[in-house]
Amino acid sequence: MQIGMIGLGRMGMNMARRLLRGGHEVAAYNRTAEKVRRIEAEGAAGADSPEALVRLLDPPRVVWLMLPVGPPVDEHIERLRPHLGPGDLVVDGGNSDFRDDLRRAEALGAEGIRYVDAGVSGGVWGLEKGYCLMLGGGADDYRRLGPVLDTLAPPGGHMHCGPVGAGHFVKMVHNGIEYALMEAYGEGFELLRASPYGPHLDFGALAALWNRGSVIRSWLLELLEDVFREDPGLEEVRGVVADSGEGRWTVREAVRLGVPADAMAHALFKRFASQREDLFSDRVVAALRRAFGGHEVRRAGGGGR
Amino acid sequence: MQIGMIGLGRMGMNMARRLLRGGHEVAAYNRTAEKVRRIEAEGAAGADSPEALVRLLDPPRVVWLMLPVGPPVDEHIERLRPHLGPGDLVVDGGNSDFRDDLRRAEALGAEGIRYVDAGVSGGVWGLEKGYCLMLGGGADDYRRLGPVLDTLAPPGGHMHCGPVGAGHFVKMVHNGIEYALMEAYGEGFELLRASPYGPHLDFGALAALWNRGSVIRSWLLELLEDVFREDPGLEEVRGVVADSGEGRWTVREAVRLGVPADAMAHALFKRFASQREDLFSDRVVAALRRAFGGHEVRRAGGGGR
Amino acid sequence: MQIGMIGLGRMGMNMARRLLRGGHEVAAYNRTAEKVRRIEAEGAAGADSPEALVRLLDPPRVVWLMLPVGPPVDEHIERLRPHLGPGDLVVDGGNSDFRDDLRRAEALGAEGIRYVDAGVSGGVWGLEKGYCLMLGGGADDYRRLGPVLDTLAPPGGHMHCGPVGAGHFVKMVHNGIEYALMEAYGEGFELLRASPYGPHLDFGALAALWNRGSVIRSWLLELLEDVFREDPGLEEVRGVVADSGEGRWTVREAVRLGVPADAMAHALFKRFASQREDLFSDRVVAALRRAFGGHEVRRAGGGGR
Amino acid sequence: MQIGMIGLGRMGMNMARRLLRGGHEVAAYNRTAEKVRRIEAEGAAGADSPEALVRLLDPPRVVWLMLPVGPPVDEHIERLRPHLGPGDLVVDGGNSDFRDDLRRAEALGAEGIRYVDAGVSGGVWGLEKGYCLMLGGGADDYRRLGPVLDTLAPPGGHMHCGPVGAGHFVKMVHNGIEYALMEAYGEGFELLRASPYGPHLDFGALAALWNRGSVIRSWLLELLEDVFREDPGLEEVRGVVADSGEGRWTVREAVRLGVPADAMAHALFKRFASQREDLFSDRVVAALRRAFGGHEVRRAGGGGR
Repeated sequence: MQIGMIGLGRMGMNMARRLLRGGHEVAAYNRTAEKVRRIEAEGAAGADSPEALVRLLDPPRVVWLMLPVGPPVDEHIERLRPHLGPGDLVVDGGNSDFRDDLRRAEALGAEGIRYVDAGVSGGVWGLEKGYCLMLGGGADDYRRLGPVLDTLAPPGGHMHCGPVGAGHFVKMVHNGIEYALMEAYGEGFELLRASPYGPHLDFGALAALWNRGSVIRSWLLELLEDVFREDPGLEEVRGVVADSGEGRWTVREAVRLGVPADAMAHALFKRFASQREDLFSDRVVAALRRAFGGHEVRRAGGGGR
Repeated sequence: MQIGMIGLGRMGMNMARRLLRGGHEVAAYNRTAEKVRRIEAEGAAGADSPEALVRLLDPPRVVWLMLPVGPPVDEHIERLRPHLGPGDLVVDGGNSDFRDDLRRAEALGAEGIRYVDAGVSGGVWGLEKGYCLMLGGGADDYRRLGPVLDTLAPPGGHMHCGPVGAGHFVKMVHNGIEYALMEAYGEGFELLRASPYGPHLDFGALAALWNRGSVIRSWLLELLEDVFREDPGLEEVRGVVADSGEGRWTVREAVRLGVPADAMAHALFKRFASQREDLFSDRVVAALRRAFGGHEVRRAGGGGR
Repeated sequence: MQIGMIGLGRMGMNMARRLLRGGHEVAAYNRTAEKVRRIEAEGAAGADSPEALVRLLDPPRVVWLMLPVGPPVDEHIERLRPHLGPGDLVVDGGNSDFRDDLRRAEALGAEGIRYVDAGVSGGVWGLEKGYCLMLGGGADDYRRLGPVLDTLAPPGGHMHCGPVGAGHFVKMVHNGIEYALMEAYGEGFELLRASPYGPHLDFGALAALWNRGSVIRSWLLELLEDVFREDPGLEEVRGVVADSGEGRWTVREAVRLGVPADAMAHALFKRFASQREDLFSDRVVAALRRAFGGHEVRRAGGGGR
Repeated sequence: MQIGMIGLGRMGMNMARRLLRGGHEVAAYNRTAEKVRRIEAEGAAGADSPEALVRLLDPPRVVWLMLPVGPPVDEHIERLRPHLGPGDLVVDGGNSDFRDDLRRAEALGAEGIRYVDAGVSGGVWGLEKGYCLMLGGGADDYRRLGPVLDTLAPPGGHMHCGPVGAGHFVKMVHNGIEYALMEAYGEGFELLRASPYGPHLDFGALAALWNRGSVIRSWLLELLEDVFREDPGLEEVRGVVADSGEGRWTVREAVRLGVPADAMAHALFKRFASQREDLFSDRVVAALRRAFGGHEVRRAGGGGR
């Protein structure tokens, strides 16, 4: 089927490619033209503006946004809006907060424009293996997207999760789980490494072992096989972990809904801590210990004790 | 090759079966004779005592223990010891504390008897899919076990993790990770369920979706597909989770080795909490709130506040 | 000085009393008239509506709201607004979200009405010992409130924390700390109780001991002396702990500001858990254990196994 | 009464002083003689060996050990043992593991020598304000120590907590609570600091405020008044926090006794993390993010990403 793709970053570019390879007719726009040229070379119709992209599509149109979270999505929707009409369908496949979906769907709906939110998982492997797609919106709109979803996802890899917002909500929880799973493996390997058995253990081989029949086998652990084989002690990596909106929103929603979420919250807070040189809370505790116990503290900037 | 199996519980029985099907010569002993008869019917040589089992084996012998954690292992080793000699090899495949391995290996080693500890993962699925085996002990002893390990494990599913204790240490960490992974999925589904989208979500279908291309796909999530398809709201299950030695030892070792392990510790502590009606700590907090704020508390045994 | 008090609940009534005893001229309004009559009997001028209360005050007026969190504050501000004018000052002493302060201050400010947010701690003990008051707003407005603050607080017990919102923000953090402190004591006493020494320990005496020279002495621990002396095993209390907006907002803000807050988040999540019979996450884990390990689960509604 | 003091470190020296000022007859020994001379100058009888100290005391003797945790306690007990006899009493006032008390009491008891374990809190402030003393052992032995306990502690500041081990167990839990309390304040001030109100807040004044009527007032918060007044941004302190045996043992015991202890465990784990430059678990997570998402990682040793 025919589809317009806006945003040709790491994810959008690969999705456009997978759609082209699947025989779809793809019109594509990206802020920097160089990427438009690249996807044109692979068979897409390139557009130099969102407006131009709309003109390349026959109504009723489908426009899929793969943009960085936040203002870019609203900005592009605002630019598209005057050029879209009843029956057209906007899909937000970025990592949006589900609360923004509700607002956007309402605004577009006032003009008869449909809106679907799509949570997309699969990372850089999606081009080859397919993306896992979590969709929120009307059942008819989901059905309408069927052909592109079938191409983007591996068999069984897309699902209508509920009304508008459901796709990004489910994706948000997915990422909360992802944070906690990664932390679980991280703790395990750290404990092994600190043990007397650590120096003799080949972590790449161990990850491979665990992926063969153990209870904890998973795709993340398969990735760890490669990670450890390339850099057994992770000497090339610093323990600084960025966090994204979804990790934060998961905890925000857990708090709002009254759901205990220690594992997901801890995985998030640990990333916060990894981003700092030194936590003020730790300085408070160190200073307190000195105050009541006469314990020495390490002085900032000094070689310390 | 020839091997003696002591302990025909859920795990031992299936391992004996897998070995028999793999063409090995298995002698088997179990405290209750009924299970011995059962495995005899499948081709094993049955023994009515540990001593009798030893007599069924040609030296140098291999005796594999699959016994409940704790005293049973030591008791059986004590019974076997006078009947074993230099070159014989005892494998403890149960869920032992790695510190007990060190002690046992030393005691047996004084008489020239070899000792290997084997962490075994795979649960009830191991009979069909093979077990993931983590071995600790001498390299020669590991090599000697090769034929049975190749049969018990799927391809690539066994590994020499280091000297005595390494197998159970690695298995212990494996279980610590397992606890934390399970908690991660648990929190995620609880959050979904509490959300406005929860009532409309088919959790079995969602688990299946996530297993098709998402970052969080795993064997545990495959099990959850079946779990939710059979009982979508888990109405048949109470939220009471038993814990085992390994979960506790992981946290003990993290504390001893100075390794942060919040995720694994929380997963353990949450199980502790699930086993209680009411936590005393919560009563302390409720009573304190009343004391300073005049907040009402729910009275024990009463319906009320 | 002259002040209008709206809301004569547990906190508002006692604060009105303390102001009257301190020689201030108090006009008071409460939705249920009975409480207005009661404070009239102690010297206040009673009003039967917010409007009537305004009329009892000479401009420039000070009206202090002590209302339940949420809609009631906005509703009362809306009713007061047409009757107030430039130079009048509204103080919100309830447990408001600091983000609501910003909105309210802006709306009132458009008409020249001043706004101060006051975080109030001290609970039911404040009448006797004084309240700890954290104020946000203009420095002039803070100074103007000086006489009533000096009466309400013990010496040194009020502070200008910053611009509008600062009072409730600081109070919010105060409550986050409070949650975590309470949890710390709760865990400690639970651990003592579970130990072999537990049955012989007099917790009231121990709390009293710790308050005499130990590092962990505190007002909360003083309250625990009384709590345990009255009900040593807390047999009369159920471990169900309510949570309030401030506990939730603290974690929300920590997430928003990128600050690790495991202790405060855990104390909140533990309250959530205490409010449930059974956690869905625990059911997920129990069902998973059964699925891979053949472990039995306790069946809902049954006597369990 | 007459008492022998072994160990004149920060704690032992001050306790000897407080005993001397209280009119007791103190014999004192320390490994480095210089400290013995110092306390002699304040009225003690100095000894140059444990044996000499015993000779300075009239039977039945009381010898109080204030030694670093671990081997030193056992070493000194072994040296004292041949010189002590039935009716003599050894008090271990150091930070011992309560499990060592059981072993020591049994060994000494075989020769009729009594043993009492004393948990001591109060830090460097104890000399002036008195120590909080938690005693384990026989009721008669506790009574016998009455005169020195009355001097060392403030009024009401000592308690018989149970049989041998109870003193150190209660002290251990005390320290677990202490860890969690400190973390609670640490998180609160870190959150304030990260907020828009942070730059304008005087933390010393705020700690002082909260100590005047708020629910979270405590001795630790009083110490924070001074800490922040001296160094408002804690610029002079690095966020590296040492941990001690008691913090670890608390979590170990919680695990052993099946008691949820997230707050105490987290406070401990956070100290572990503060002691490291970089956590391996964070490197695992960072490497995993790169592996599935193509996210850049910060390279070790480099300035960059």
